[in-house]
Amino acid sequence: MNEDGLIEALRARLAGDDPRVVVGIGDDAAVLATLAGQAVVSVDAQVEGVHFDRRWLETADVAHRGISAALSDLAAMGAEATAVLVSWELPAGEPEAGLRGLVDGLAEASRDYRVPIVGGNVARGPALSQHTTVIGEVRRAATLRSGAKPGDGVFVSGPLGTAAVGLRALMAGENDAFAQRWRRPTARLDLARLIAAQASACVDISDGLGSELTHLARASGVGARVELARVPTAPGQAERARALGHDPEALVVAGGEDYELLFTSIAPVDPRLATRVGEITDGDVEIVRADGARWSGERGFRHR
Amino acid sequence: MNEDGLIEALRARLAGDDPRVVVGIGDDAAVLATLAGQAVVSVDAQVEGVHFDRRWLETADVAHRGISAALSDLAAMGAEATAVLVSWELPAGEPEAGLRGLVDGLAEASRDYRVPIVGGNVARGPALSQHTTVIGEVRRAATLRSGAKPGDGVFVSGPLGTAAVGLRALMAGENDAFAQRWRRPTARLDLARLIAAQASACVDISDGLGSELTHLARASGVGARVELARVPTAPGQAERARALGHDPEALVVAGGEDYELLFTSIAPVDPRLATRVGEITDGDVEIVRADGARWSGERGFRHR
Repeated sequence: MNEDGLIEALRARLAGDDPRVVVGIGDDAAVLATLAGQAVVSVDAQVEGVHFDRRWLETADVAHRGISAALSDLAAMGAEATAVLVSWELPAGEPEAGLRGLVDGLAEASRDYRVPIVGGNVARGPALSQHTTVIGEVRRAATLRSGAKPGDGVFVSGPLGTAAVGLRALMAGENDAFAQRWRRPTARLDLARLIAAQASACVDISDGLGSELTHLARASGVGARVELARVPTAPGQAERARALGHDPEALVVAGGEDYELLFTSIAPVDPRLATRVGEITDGDVEIVRADGARWSGERGFRHR
Repeated sequence: MNEDGLIEALRARLAGDDPRVVVGIGDDAAVLATLAGQAVVSVDAQVEGVHFDRRWLETADVAHRGISAALSDLAAMGAEATAVLVSWELPAGEPEAGLRGLVDGLAEASRDYRVPIVGGNVARGPALSQHTTVIGEVRRAATLRSGAKPGDGVFVSGPLGTAAVGLRALMAGENDAFAQRWRRPTARLDLARLIAAQASACVDISDGLGSELTHLARASGVGARVELARVPTAPGQAERARALGHDPEALVVAGGEDYELLFTSIAPVDPRLATRVGEITDGDVEIVRADGARWSGERGFRHR
């Protein structure tokens, strides 16, 4: 299978009778049915040697993960996913299994998120990369990062630092459930309606709780106080972090790549859906350690 | 200016009061006003060392050209452009002037095509690349490549082979008006309404007349006969091609990257807008040379 074969395989695997798709892969562009509301659009990239290492990810993981990371931005806007487009750079001599993996990863993501893949582009490049564009819709207004008000609760949608522990495990040559969490994060599109209905502000946690909280607070012109003791983590996570030689709290604050949602709401939130970890203030952004001291270390990381 | 500065510069330069944009660059995603018709979406990539060489293009050209190539696909669907998203890979140590050039090129393209740039992503990568996603709309149906019928005329919207002559000039270390045509192609969005109103099928000519005609004919299940003597070229183009050591007809057929439109129509077309170069048949795809012989050489090229 060469690159033409790759596009053909995509077309065959991803064709369907999704009512959102009028024309899928194969013409100069894809055509989507008229969107009911406003369109929400975002693009994200995963680059070999920068965002991932081929020792840690199969190409199916790269494809799936790229889509999850991009869809996570739609969830943070309170948008439902309508369509995905993928543009790859592939090094010369990428083996057949690698190409098949890309198709498999896309097909899995399309099924997992019930979203059609309507466009694909393949270019030769010096390293494997995937640039993923996502298109979603909101019926009313999108949820921005700038709407938080003092008195709002601060919520997170799931365990944090878990993917970072997994990445440290992979770096140490180990493979475990934490590694799987890093390899195959889940975009919280299941919470898009909750965000749209109830959140005053929302961001997805791609870079780390500390930096995302700071982004949200700065955009909203507010402060925040979050207690690390209230932030959910996975069972055994702190022990695993220590065993790998890392401060568990540092990975919760600055680890990133969990793709959970951080949002604010004046109303209570069903605790089965999200955990209240603090509140919006009119002061600074404060992160309080379990021992009561104020967090003063790194607040996030960036690949770039 | 670092990469954060690049996004900030983009936000500052590209912010506007375009009624199509509800939320621009800066949140997790951009928000577009409700589209009146169906959405038409496509993605295209330009990769250093594959699609271009830094000796021939400034970064402003890379940015502008990437957008033109992507918008050309919307024109071919008869769609008007609504929004553009750009995702870059930038090598470490890209100089300040290079980053500024990217912003300039985007701003110029936004102005030239009257389309807002609503999303940008910057990742580190081994070489410069731009992945451009375009979103457009069609009021009624999009124009596909599959609608041509025997008896339709075959039309092209402008000179072909001109960009290919320019690329050969650049390769020979020369710079002229042909080179400028390769460096800064124009997407024929000005013809989108004509295509929507009148074309039975359309593709943009990115790979070369020969291969695009073959794609259109195959998708439509028809044949075609095109006479090279009727295909428009730029003044002095044949002489320039010969001086550079190339067969002028070969560059017209297989040169590519002119980003003109190739379309079919049963009705006559205003000759100021496009040139009739042949007709759709129920036979093979035939390209006839000026000397009356049938073209048997290369029909197109692909970067990849």
